[in-house]
Amino acid sequence: MPEFPDDSVGLVTPQTAHFDDPLALACGRTLPAYDLVYETYGTLNAERSNAVLICHALSGHHHAAGYHDADERKPGWWDAHIGPGKSIDTNRFFVVSLNNLGGCHGSTGPNSTNAATGRLWGPDFPMVTVSDWVHSQARLADRLGIERFAAVIGGSLGGMQALQWSLTYPERVANAAIIAATPKLSAQNIAFNEVARQAIRSDPDFHDGWYTEHGTAPKRGLKLARMVGHITYLSEDAMGSKFGRDLRSEDLNFGYDVEFQVESYLRYQGDTFSTAFDANTYLLMTKALDYFDPAAEHGGVLADAVAPSRCTFLVVSFTSDWRFPPSRSRELANALTRAGKPVSYVNIDSPHGHDAFLLPEPRYQAVFSAFMSRVARELGLEKRA
Amino acid sequence: MPEFPDDSVGLVTPQTAHFDDPLALACGRTLPAYDLVYETYGTLNAERSNAVLICHALSGHHHAAGYHDADERKPGWWDAHIGPGKSIDTNRFFVVSLNNLGGCHGSTGPNSTNAATGRLWGPDFPMVTVSDWVHSQARLADRLGIERFAAVIGGSLGGMQALQWSLTYPERVANAAIIAATPKLSAQNIAFNEVARQAIRSDPDFHDGWYTEHGTAPKRGLKLARMVGHITYLSEDAMGSKFGRDLRSEDLNFGYDVEFQVESYLRYQGDTFSTAFDANTYLLMTKALDYFDPAAEHGGVLADAVAPSRCTFLVVSFTSDWRFPPSRSRELANALTRAGKPVSYVNIDSPHGHDAFLLPEPRYQAVFSAFMSRVARELGLEKRA
Repeated sequence: MPEFPDDSVGLVTPQTAHFDDPLALACGRTLPAYDLVYETYGTLNAERSNAVLICHALSGHHHAAGYHDADERKPGWWDAHIGPGKSIDTNRFFVVSLNNLGGCHGSTGPNSTNAATGRLWGPDFPMVTVSDWVHSQARLADRLGIERFAAVIGGSLGGMQALQWSLTYPERVANAAIIAATPKLSAQNIAFNEVARQAIRSDPDFHDGWYTEHGTAPKRGLKLARMVGHITYLSEDAMGSKFGRDLRSEDLNFGYDVEFQVESYLRYQGDTFSTAFDANTYLLMTKALDYFDPAAEHGGVLADAVAPSRCTFLVVSFTSDWRFPPSRSRELANALTRAGKPVSYVNIDSPHGHDAFLLPEPRYQAVFSAFMSRVARELGLEKRA
Repeated sequence: MPEFPDDSVGLVTPQTAHFDDPLALACGRTLPAYDLVYETYGTLNAERSNAVLICHALSGHHHAAGYHDADERKPGWWDAHIGPGKSIDTNRFFVVSLNNLGGCHGSTGPNSTNAATGRLWGPDFPMVTVSDWVHSQARLADRLGIERFAAVIGGSLGGMQALQWSLTYPERVANAAIIAATPKLSAQNIAFNEVARQAIRSDPDFHDGWYTEHGTAPKRGLKLARMVGHITYLSEDAMGSKFGRDLRSEDLNFGYDVEFQVESYLRYQGDTFSTAFDANTYLLMTKALDYFDPAAEHGGVLADAVAPSRCTFLVVSFTSDWRFPPSRSRELANALTRAGKPVSYVNIDSPHGHDAFLLPEPRYQAVFSAFMSRVARELGLEKRA
């Protein structure tokens, strides 16, 4: 038996759910059939009342906790918060984590075959929105026999899904945790996404999105997109204290090789990502971010948009997050309050910028754990031995 | 006679100064000969005591004020502040504005011929630093018969040159105005520059910098570099109030054509710049920014680094500037104060981000004018009729 930490969910195996019911999308197109790859941690109780849905962010996927094999170097991306005794305690909750439609980790997306053409979907994959994801996730919940989630939880783009769940399926969400998110992107947010898209789409290896058929990939563009993204995930202070103006070697080289440590870090992050992620998926995800704006259909009045929700909310922001700053979370918390919804808003002191939502900041863990304990208590969930 | 506004310096003609004395550079190489293109506004007085040097920023040049011809659509880049009756009053001051070495507007740079090879300098043009520029500017001053500047003035990268002047040639600077600048880049600043460089250098049309010989130019890369730059020049609020989430047409198109106004703006800015500016120059300028750090030779103690200065300083920042935020200007003002130097520091309330230094904000103009009036008074400069 492989050795995993005591508070790890241990070895996990992704599963795939196939759906044959066509899914009508916000863009007007219909996905005739699709797969969703997902993982579960913990056990669904007899009442099916202890399920928690985890929604992933821009570059995330279904592997949120545990290990795929004994040699896996790092556990799932939210392992700090999911496991026995952790904030999302798998001794109490049955956790579902999936890869969204349009993703590149196993769910149907640009790298899947379009049955109608026999060709990869590639750039023909339809634009998907946060609402579309929520609908597809609801079908997965049906498949798993989950009528109502104890909580729907996500950070960043995942938080937008949690919010949308509370509006689209109010009866199916008891609690929603919306972390480091925003009720809509700012012009600056859209601008950064647009730079990322232009970087990918102007890469000569992009071939209008048919790069796989050309036996190539727009790695230069994807690398640049990720480099820009990374700058916005870290706070200026975090970058400063992590790298400062430290040089890679003793002297300046007065050339374009890496001179400063921060350059080395960014290039490495960009290179790694550019070989691991799909460019068409990246484009789709940034568009889903841009489109999200539940208030738009309510004359821009967010308090009106959130009126249908029937859950209890936790809204969390991080002081140094400048991608989705505390002011945006406050805007959401205020709108929920104005709409008479039960909401706790917590602004966590952290130097780690947007990335803080992934990290085990002690106060964040305390707040998150307290929220989930209340969820368990109110739903009468027993802790398994 | 063409009609220009009364407060314009009117028609101006660039001049070129050729230098045959080799210039030893910080990188260890030597520029055997070079040209500097410059403009002057106003008249040098008999005492040669009323000269003001304007230093330009990343994408700037010598054309700071007035018009090159009657049809020129826009005046020079700092026309809001240079002219008869303006902050830098050409009825009092003789203003010198040049294109820096390595530039692409007429001074010797990557697009000039390297006499040693008969080929364009291209990527072989030596790396130039703020100190190198100051040395070359001092030679231009010699040529113009200017022993001591009434003021050396610049915004952003230009402000770094003004600071460096006060340290390298303390006897030659009576006053220095350092606007929207920083005593050194932060890791985040360097990171944004590095993204810009990677965008240019990974463009297949870059050809290791020999693009002109290949009959092409890395326009995609330069466009991306400028788009990233532009996001950092504007404040989040300015972008928000200028564009918000306004759509280009009535409906979302669920595709990658322009949907939001901010995308349209960024693409336009990037396209325009990519055909007007030279990529090798852009690379050099970003490196000059990265390298600037006068405190480095003084164990990181800025107050020690500024000890040689003998001028009076004006340090200006803008509240919404997040590229070089007020905290960085305060750092400089504090170091000058600690070193016992006369310094006025003003933080101007402006929503326009880093770009504010180019704009005619009323309080900025008032502060700038008051500073320059004091300079004129103390140097006994007469206002010409």
